[in-house]
Amino acid sequence: MHVLITGAAGMLGRKLTRRLVDVGTLRGSPIDRIDLIDIVETPIENSTCFTHVTDICGPGVATELLRPVPDVIFHLAGVVSGEAEADFDKGMAVNVDGTRALFDALRFAEGSPRVVFTSSIAVFGAPFPDPIPDDFHLTPLTSYGMEKMVAEALLADYTRRGVFDGVGIRLPTISVRPGTPNAAASGFFSGIIREPLVGAQAVLPVSRNVRHSHASPRSAVGYMVHAAELDSAALGSRRNLTMPGVSVTVGEQIDALARVAGPDAASLIVEAPDPVIADIVGGWPERFDTQRALDLGFTPDESYDAIIRAYLEDDVAPS
Amino acid sequence: MHVLITGAAGMLGRKLTRRLVDVGTLRGSPIDRIDLIDIVETPIENSTCFTHVTDICGPGVATELLRPVPDVIFHLAGVVSGEAEADFDKGMAVNVDGTRALFDALRFAEGSPRVVFTSSIAVFGAPFPDPIPDDFHLTPLTSYGMEKMVAEALLADYTRRGVFDGVGIRLPTISVRPGTPNAAASGFFSGIIREPLVGAQAVLPVSRNVRHSHASPRSAVGYMVHAAELDSAALGSRRNLTMPGVSVTVGEQIDALARVAGPDAASLIVEAPDPVIADIVGGWPERFDTQRALDLGFTPDESYDAIIRAYLEDDVAPS
Repeated sequence: MHVLITGAAGMLGRKLTRRLVDVGTLRGSPIDRIDLIDIVETPIENSTCFTHVTDICGPGVATELLRPVPDVIFHLAGVVSGEAEADFDKGMAVNVDGTRALFDALRFAEGSPRVVFTSSIAVFGAPFPDPIPDDFHLTPLTSYGMEKMVAEALLADYTRRGVFDGVGIRLPTISVRPGTPNAAASGFFSGIIREPLVGAQAVLPVSRNVRHSHASPRSAVGYMVHAAELDSAALGSRRNLTMPGVSVTVGEQIDALARVAGPDAASLIVEAPDPVIADIVGGWPERFDTQRALDLGFTPDESYDAIIRAYLEDDVAPS
Repeated sequence: MHVLITGAAGMLGRKLTRRLVDVGTLRGSPIDRIDLIDIVETPIENSTCFTHVTDICGPGVATELLRPVPDVIFHLAGVVSGEAEADFDKGMAVNVDGTRALFDALRFAEGSPRVVFTSSIAVFGAPFPDPIPDDFHLTPLTSYGMEKMVAEALLADYTRRGVFDGVGIRLPTISVRPGTPNAAASGFFSGIIREPLVGAQAVLPVSRNVRHSHASPRSAVGYMVHAAELDSAALGSRRNLTMPGVSVTVGEQIDALARVAGPDAASLIVEAPDPVIADIVGGWPERFDTQRALDLGFTPDESYDAIIRAYLEDDVAPS
């Protein structure tokens, strides 16, 4: 089993690599090689891992990386939402043209690998029904969401044409996100859990009534592995799937924090309403009916409490 | 009022040009210039028309054509369905990269024109609810449909970013299509009307129970002009619209032919079932609920009888 991961140095790429190394098999076969592709150096987990510092958008780069063609490709590389909005050309170059370069290279390579592509619920744009069904149209309200929509369209058509065997998974907001606070408008969803857990204050810029869908990094990695392993015949021609999330209000997140870490932790959350952030978040989806993904065996977190516990186990005090 | 039309030499481009020349105004202003762009020579209607034989995909071509930026651009240029399926690179080059070249040229030009883009119901793919609602997801089953979906996504995002003021209209099957029979799988929808009207036999390769949505060329041109004139604020951020059609079975088409042209015409239709064509057509949409377009003032043909009469008036014996 030969695996290739783009965007391997990112948070999810590193967790996916660790999972693959720990489990040691994929699709029932021992993993003998993992190629880790990123524009920065990716830490290597063991001797099956090979790191490549390169840009798949570069001429000929994708073709070179596909000699030989891996059995499974996880295409995680991408410019994130805020940057894609601020630098339109960079977002298009990486999220659209980079994806197309990888897909096109597969047209002229031997073999038809499984390609798992991480899309995003940013492909959806308000107004929404509640919940949003699996057959709801894509009307993104950011360039990032548009670029993910385009990549999804390419993935489905290249799969239909037999170039590869693609599965696109639309990830919900990942929380609890490890690391330091960042400037993303969604950052507080993780911050209000992560900071109090280490005794630090966290700012809540929106109302406690704001509802949002979450998946732990552990579940997101589980979705990727399942997308690599499932029988794609069950997908038919609709290759892009909204992944399940735990839909909770901010108030319910805070209640979960109090249950898992005690009321003192929850008391470290400082309410400081920010109308700009409230306005951005107000246009985001709140809840999805992800029956297709559930029927296909994608397993979400059990609760927001479980999401916090997964964070404590995986990122605060990993065994 | 300065208008630019790409794909101007095509059937709809020529009919649109004639309509604009006949009416003489657009958005309440006299039309003083119409630039007609195509890879072949476009016939000129009058002295306001200027023909340009060029390929908007070529380097710098779109930029050159936008000096000065027109008030309204009708972007009709495209590789058709069958060709886009057979020659993937050509379809992508024209339908995706050509569209992007035009849109990108507008990023660096003065002004923010109305851009009317002709998309297609090929963005939809079976299985379908009946009728297909305005918020149904796009899961094209052809490369042509995928390319139109990508162009729609670009149009909406460039509009959101203020590059231009875009309206995408998804045309149903155009019938009665003037001219000679062609190899398109949908060709019989027009052929079974057009050929008997001149006393010729026409082959019907599918069951009379097959249902399909139709718009006359006259209505399609009406949709384009309305898309150029409507108040785009009413569209909000959802810039792509399914156009209304007349949804009838093949049997109802033939009944209409008998009413308009007599039973002798209808008797010229020869049933010759073709399982390959039946299979292709079986994956096509039958009926749409196009409430958004109707609310926005797009006016469909009144009936299939009216579609046949429009063909007789516009193409068989034009005044």
